[in-house]
Amino acid sequence: MTTPEYQIFSLGSNPQLGIEIATLLETDLSAVDTRQFADNEIYERIEQTVRGRDLYVIQGISDPVNDNFMKLMIFIDAARRASANTINIVIPYFGYARADRKARSREPISARMIANMLESQGVKRVITMDLHADQVQGFFDIPVDHLISMPALGHYFYENDLLGDDLVVVAPDHSSVSRARKFAELLHAEWAVVDRRVDGILSSGTYAVTGNVVGKRAILVDDIIDTGTSMVLASQALSAAGVTEIYAVAPHAVLSDNAVAKLKKSAIKQVLVTNTIEVPKEKQFSKLIQISVAETFAETIRRVNAFESIEDIMKSPDNRNVML
Amino acid sequence: MTTPEYQIFSLGSNPQLGIEIATLLETDLSAVDTRQFADNEIYERIEQTVRGRDLYVIQGISDPVNDNFMKLMIFIDAARRASANTINIVIPYFGYARADRKARSREPISARMIANMLESQGVKRVITMDLHADQVQGFFDIPVDHLISMPALGHYFYENDLLGDDLVVVAPDHSSVSRARKFAELLHAEWAVVDRRVDGILSSGTYAVTGNVVGKRAILVDDIIDTGTSMVLASQALSAAGVTEIYAVAPHAVLSDNAVAKLKKSAIKQVLVTNTIEVPKEKQFSKLIQISVAETFAETIRRVNAFESIEDIMKSPDNRNVML
Amino acid sequence: MTTPEYQIFSLGSNPQLGIEIATLLETDLSAVDTRQFADNEIYERIEQTVRGRDLYVIQGISDPVNDNFMKLMIFIDAARRASANTINIVIPYFGYARADRKARSREPISARMIANMLESQGVKRVITMDLHADQVQGFFDIPVDHLISMPALGHYFYENDLLGDDLVVVAPDHSSVSRARKFAELLHAEWAVVDRRVDGILSSGTYAVTGNVVGKRAILVDDIIDTGTSMVLASQALSAAGVTEIYAVAPHAVLSDNAVAKLKKSAIKQVLVTNTIEVPKEKQFSKLIQISVAETFAETIRRVNAFESIEDIMKSPDNRNVML
Amino acid sequence: MTTPEYQIFSLGSNPQLGIEIATLLETDLSAVDTRQFADNEIYERIEQTVRGRDLYVIQGISDPVNDNFMKLMIFIDAARRASANTINIVIPYFGYARADRKARSREPISARMIANMLESQGVKRVITMDLHADQVQGFFDIPVDHLISMPALGHYFYENDLLGDDLVVVAPDHSSVSRARKFAELLHAEWAVVDRRVDGILSSGTYAVTGNVVGKRAILVDDIIDTGTSMVLASQALSAAGVTEIYAVAPHAVLSDNAVAKLKKSAIKQVLVTNTIEVPKEKQFSKLIQISVAETFAETIRRVNAFESIEDIMKSPDNRNVML
Amino acid sequence: MTTPEYQIFSLGSNPQLGIEIATLLETDLSAVDTRQFADNEIYERIEQTVRGRDLYVIQGISDPVNDNFMKLMIFIDAARRASANTINIVIPYFGYARADRKARSREPISARMIANMLESQGVKRVITMDLHADQVQGFFDIPVDHLISMPALGHYFYENDLLGDDLVVVAPDHSSVSRARKFAELLHAEWAVVDRRVDGILSSGTYAVTGNVVGKRAILVDDIIDTGTSMVLASQALSAAGVTEIYAVAPHAVLSDNAVAKLKKSAIKQVLVTNTIEVPKEKQFSKLIQISVAETFAETIRRVNAFESIEDIMKSPDNRNVML
Amino acid sequence: MTTPEYQIFSLGSNPQLGIEIATLLETDLSAVDTRQFADNEIYERIEQTVRGRDLYVIQGISDPVNDNFMKLMIFIDAARRASANTINIVIPYFGYARADRKARSREPISARMIANMLESQGVKRVITMDLHADQVQGFFDIPVDHLISMPALGHYFYENDLLGDDLVVVAPDHSSVSRARKFAELLHAEWAVVDRRVDGILSSGTYAVTGNVVGKRAILVDDIIDTGTSMVLASQALSAAGVTEIYAVAPHAVLSDNAVAKLKKSAIKQVLVTNTIEVPKEKQFSKLIQISVAETFAETIRRVNAFESIEDIMKSPDNRNVML
Repeated sequence: MTTPEYQIFSLGSNPQLGIEIATLLETDLSAVDTRQFADNEIYERIEQTVRGRDLYVIQGISDPVNDNFMKLMIFIDAARRASANTINIVIPYFGYARADRKARSREPISARMIANMLESQGVKRVITMDLHADQVQGFFDIPVDHLISMPALGHYFYENDLLGDDLVVVAPDHSSVSRARKFAELLHAEWAVVDRRVDGILSSGTYAVTGNVVGKRAILVDDIIDTGTSMVLASQALSAAGVTEIYAVAPHAVLSDNAVAKLKKSAIKQVLVTNTIEVPKEKQFSKLIQISVAETFAETIRRVNAFESIEDIMKSPDNRNVML
Repeated sequence: MTTPEYQIFSLGSNPQLGIEIATLLETDLSAVDTRQFADNEIYERIEQTVRGRDLYVIQGISDPVNDNFMKLMIFIDAARRASANTINIVIPYFGYARADRKARSREPISARMIANMLESQGVKRVITMDLHADQVQGFFDIPVDHLISMPALGHYFYENDLLGDDLVVVAPDHSSVSRARKFAELLHAEWAVVDRRVDGILSSGTYAVTGNVVGKRAILVDDIIDTGTSMVLASQALSAAGVTEIYAVAPHAVLSDNAVAKLKKSAIKQVLVTNTIEVPKEKQFSKLIQISVAETFAETIRRVNAFESIEDIMKSPDNRNVML
Repeated sequence: MTTPEYQIFSLGSNPQLGIEIATLLETDLSAVDTRQFADNEIYERIEQTVRGRDLYVIQGISDPVNDNFMKLMIFIDAARRASANTINIVIPYFGYARADRKARSREPISARMIANMLESQGVKRVITMDLHADQVQGFFDIPVDHLISMPALGHYFYENDLLGDDLVVVAPDHSSVSRARKFAELLHAEWAVVDRRVDGILSSGTYAVTGNVVGKRAILVDDIIDTGTSMVLASQALSAAGVTEIYAVAPHAVLSDNAVAKLKKSAIKQVLVTNTIEVPKEKQFSKLIQISVAETFAETIRRVNAFESIEDIMKSPDNRNVML
Repeated sequence: MTTPEYQIFSLGSNPQLGIEIATLLETDLSAVDTRQFADNEIYERIEQTVRGRDLYVIQGISDPVNDNFMKLMIFIDAARRASANTINIVIPYFGYARADRKARSREPISARMIANMLESQGVKRVITMDLHADQVQGFFDIPVDHLISMPALGHYFYENDLLGDDLVVVAPDHSSVSRARKFAELLHAEWAVVDRRVDGILSSGTYAVTGNVVGKRAILVDDIIDTGTSMVLASQALSAAGVTEIYAVAPHAVLSDNAVAKLKKSAIKQVLVTNTIEVPKEKQFSKLIQISVAETFAETIRRVNAFESIEDIMKSPDNRNVML
Repeated sequence: MTTPEYQIFSLGSNPQLGIEIATLLETDLSAVDTRQFADNEIYERIEQTVRGRDLYVIQGISDPVNDNFMKLMIFIDAARRASANTINIVIPYFGYARADRKARSREPISARMIANMLESQGVKRVITMDLHADQVQGFFDIPVDHLISMPALGHYFYENDLLGDDLVVVAPDHSSVSRARKFAELLHAEWAVVDRRVDGILSSGTYAVTGNVVGKRAILVDDIIDTGTSMVLASQALSAAGVTEIYAVAPHAVLSDNAVAKLKKSAIKQVLVTNTIEVPKEKQFSKLIQISVAETFAETIRRVNAFESIEDIMKSPDNRNVML
Repeated sequence: MTTPEYQIFSLGSNPQLGIEIATLLETDLSAVDTRQFADNEIYERIEQTVRGRDLYVIQGISDPVNDNFMKLMIFIDAARRASANTINIVIPYFGYARADRKARSREPISARMIANMLESQGVKRVITMDLHADQVQGFFDIPVDHLISMPALGHYFYENDLLGDDLVVVAPDHSSVSRARKFAELLHAEWAVVDRRVDGILSSGTYAVTGNVVGKRAILVDDIIDTGTSMVLASQALSAAGVTEIYAVAPHAVLSDNAVAKLKKSAIKQVLVTNTIEVPKEKQFSKLIQISVAETFAETIRRVNAFESIEDIMKSPDNRNVML
């Protein structure tokens, strides 16, 4: 008796990424019948046996976040009752991750609640990318394979000969300093920070740049581009400070509200994101470059399933293919 | 040191019902700041201390069901972390309750999953009304105060002198027989059933009425009016069978798709529902009568909080006020 | 290193069924030393190593239900501590399943409690048959393989050329309508229902037949024959309504109290049950026909163990062997 | 709003003890409708509201142990769903407590399983008496108020002027040494032990007395008198060793099989037990003296409910009333 | 019957703080007998009844962290079994909090494990101060009252007239930027950061100051002073950059290894810490100023116990007494 | 795809035993980087992938017990997050096992707490030796492979021709009677007991020997030699009673305080212990003989991993190699 093969499911938050991952793994996506009724109630039925199988379920918690999350939860329930051996969930974008602490009294920590729900339904492993804070791993007791897109994003600068002494990596606010610093290290560049100065008089705040950026090319680095405000304000401060060229880099392209319009109008030359979130056609624009992270996810699934370490995935952005 | 008062919250699925309940309890709804971002992520913050308080949280799992459910979950997380003493949830309409069993292989039992999530986050009690199946109570280990609207709905027929020997209560299909039978008992009427006959030849099925309905006034009874198809087809069968007047009665007015149009056109004279689900203005129509169940919920909350039995709530529809 | 074989245990509620299942699987029952002391305390010791094995444990929760249930629980404890890999329990008759909801205040939901106990001790899977209500599946978080005996029972009518246009399937009361309707579909027959009419004057109730049964052969269908009262009263109503021949069909032959005497005296021609419950010699009588469901259980165990789907087990009663 | 009173329930394993405890607490037993069907299935319904109440439920796990245990479990389920505040269980005799370790491979630890079941259903506290091993307390995570009957039993010897230098307390086998030693300390007496000698030749074993018993009055002390074999064999060894008078003392009078006949015939002058287990009329005999422990349980319930320490209950047997 | 008073225990990690808190609450510390055997095994016995009491247990997870943590765990076990109503733990310094994420493969997240242990043993609430990362709150499902010492520490600068335009708050490395920024806001000062520059050539790294510090008085802010290296290196960079006066501020004075010697020798004028960790006599030195946070803890315990909000504790450092 | 091999880790409580076990299993210990900081905080990192592996982790809870226990807990957390398949812990000496019951009010049951912590972190199996009480097995729900060293210790007497009719096994106090009796059975010897007599006048107590020891060679048997007091006092009583030669036998050599000095001075000829606890050089003395139990642990690991029964490990001390 041989152990059955693993199966990959894509629940619809990001169909293209699902297909890319399956293609790289030289397999087909397994079939699930998903319907959403007029009142938004979701129905799912897995269309082939999963008995004893190890399942990898790709579903981001992206817009519409609650529907996408519930699609994942309901799938898990069906899979568990259908005797799946293990349920491994691949969450390219972990929505609600920014709600990771109580900043004020009587706030929720929604990211922990999401973790609780997943764990209590019997999920065995989470594979995700670029969590807003590393500590969210600790919201889980199950293994979290926390991937990073920085090497893939950094690779873009290597590939296009954009490195150099005049390059500086800039955090668009104080909370992004660690992330910017790591990216700078990857590109062998200096770093700086744009921040709203602490000021008793001007309550609205003004943005100032600390660090040497005059005459340099700057890469603004954040984890999420949501409404785009943070990136655009930082780019204005950088322009004012004498920067010659601005790139904006972030793994997760939420692009809500009028983010696209704001970014188009801004001084930012290129906006580099990944495909953890599917950017619909109407939100795509010429400055926006999407780097696929399908290889990273596919390789991780392959190794997890073969009991191999994922430690060395994407150590260096010099040669992207080094990892495969 | 005195024990602090209980607090009532209404999370927005049914604002009017929340206000009615609070008014009947001679209290105010407590404040919660609820926001939904552009990507549907929900943020909630409770605006006054709940430390040591017993909370009653009113939120139906109605359209949009996933957003409304997540609003409830996130509130619970915030309340628990804010040291609420107990969190009692009032779910006028329990969405996903129809997903209460596996009818086919590899289906979910979403109602159980909903129950799991609520329980695992520390909810102490569920107060709900007219569950699709009584067994859903058993999906919980915590107490479920399962209220019924039948007495309130039946009261309408008493109040409007609609009782009589020519009245028959009719189940619109075989799965509603038990419910119809109970309502018949309440109104001292006979019962009948409309059902798609089992027939090897006509696969589309034809509806037939079993039981004596000729020349009678009929009340079709179900728990939910969703797309309205079931009620309308049954009304056609009743008309064909010689019924003189048709009422449709159901606690939960989901009214999805073009239910309203179908009901308007049908031979049904009046559609009697409750306000467990808020019917928006554009879905209201002259045939539709909404009976408020706010009293039932308010009185239940009062008794639960005073450690009194709720057993005798709404025993008889003769005199509605008997319960208070 | 090869994975060790699975093992089958039969704990004594139904020794003959256990032997049949093991024979069909071409294996032996594994040995367990079971003793019950004078005060009813149970002692069990598994007599060969179960380390790393997948166990299938056959034990119905039938009379004496509490002793049989505790025998199962104690076995589970021993097996778990002895390092069994998985414990899969086969419960041909799930006692207490009728206690699946609170019909009145302050009643237990014993079926859920049974589910809780089994799950909390580490059971991995439940294989059972014809639950009183499908929703009982939702009392478990672990997989429930819910088998049905209707195809095996229906096969009897095919095999003995008892089908025909004059056949009608009858629910002995309103709560059996769904079950009767499904059996009718299987035999391509019409259905009817016998029920205690709702009547304000005659509180004792009289039984009436709805649906066309005159001059027909009727099959009464229920899930359990316990005291036999329901079947016998329904048969009297059918006789009065002009039925020519009556069969009684039910998977579970509890046959408590003087059920046997009542059935013998009744107008019912044949009583068709399965062997989910062992009928002791003194309760067997000429009208009673026991159809073995051992094949259904054996085939299910085989497939579960080989990671095959059980979806198509017993789809059609035309040819019983189709499933194997 | 005042906190409601606590309620006491007696589930039938020992009706007389329940009444005694309630009488001492100057309250009535609360009503529960308990039925056992022909197949042994148990049904219970609590007959008055328990909402918000603290319940004390008296039920020993004595013969028939499985039925009595399930009566307790089902009551707990009903009480929890009926919104009891806390469920405190009073188990005068804790059946299965002797199954507290694996003496051989693949045995269960049934006592732990019993503990698991009780805890997982939400019991808040266990009040019990004279556990076979103290370590069984550690099978629970919830508080166990472990009472002892030794002072009450010892009081009998004080009250009847049976103390003296010629008194020796004897363990009927090596596993009772600790218990005998404690009782000896209570009565200011010496101790000895009767034991099957370790002997390679005589495999059946012979009983020998270690310690000075010649010409003395001996009290054999154990925790349970089950079949009586151990006590009777020890009494024979004591007689052979020159003891003048023999008493047998044990809290729990299981008295299974032909224990009564054996004890009647033996050289034992008096058999002193408590009423943790109800001794039916047909098992009572002139040598048997039952000491009531109702006061101990009643006082414990009173203190637990009043948040008082129970540490000093029954410190000394000199004056039994010292505790109240 | 009145509810019993709460009790405060101090388990020995910081005896002086315990006494201060109790004194401020006008109560006595409750007695617990704590012993540590030669092999380090800990024994604790609570010396008065805790039945039904709300307990507040003060114990930091400070050096020796494992012994101090186990003292807390064992106390919790004893208290729970002794029927305490609730166990609220006050952890002035939360050891292991820095192990809050996996920085490399196969590392533990010890802070989450600590949280799991506490929660699984039934702790109801954690009161702690200045967690290394706010997200550690989300490692718990129970309420965490997360206090901050910044207002108390900031008060020192108000009280001693140390504010002014020439004051700058400096983060000693990039990971402290958020903390420094908040402290700057509190003191209406600007902020800057000292950091090891990212540099491909000099792998050892050099420290550089970003932001305007020339001729200013600088306050270095961190959460923990452990070996002191970070503070001392930052002070050297500040001196080199032209700072006139340097303060070092941090809530938690771990002061391990030769931290004291290094700080003494450094250019830092004053080292301002709190008493969350007891600084033994041999580690005290003239530059070191310990601000007591006993009032913050005492007031929090008082409010928690009175069901009052703690939101406004220590909003402003202007007037420290505003909170009480 | 082949299943990866198991891995063995030794966390440092007993390095020599770890090496012996690995050598016997013909494998290497896997690498883990363990550091303990100045404040005692522990850091561990597993140095090769454990993904999908079955781990066997050797770590006794011996002096320093809390540090050694936390090293185990932190390793478990790292291993679980690193996707180990199963974590099996080998605890040669189970510290805190003596805290297995509440002897007085408000004491902890620390052994259960230890069990809870291990289980709640996902340990799959415990392999341990000579628990203070067998019931501690029941503190776990997971399998406990409870090994005994008595055959290995008994083998010493066979091997050195120390058996004979003049041999008597002696319990050093009443609580060791069962253990002594079992050892006597193994050596085909008689048994006796030394105990502090129960005596109202001499409160300090005097030790007396019960059983025939005059002119015999005595083996004192206990499970732990901690401070040595119990063994030494018993040896004095034996000498006084006319014993000719005294051996002291116990699996676990805690040897705390001045145990070594006391044993050296005593009349005991040889002290026979195992290497479950590492005896540091400065505690070794000529009378002390350490029997290695590495074979027992190694063979158990081998069988557990090969799904073989361990029932017959070490049945007889006649021929030690019989087991392998």
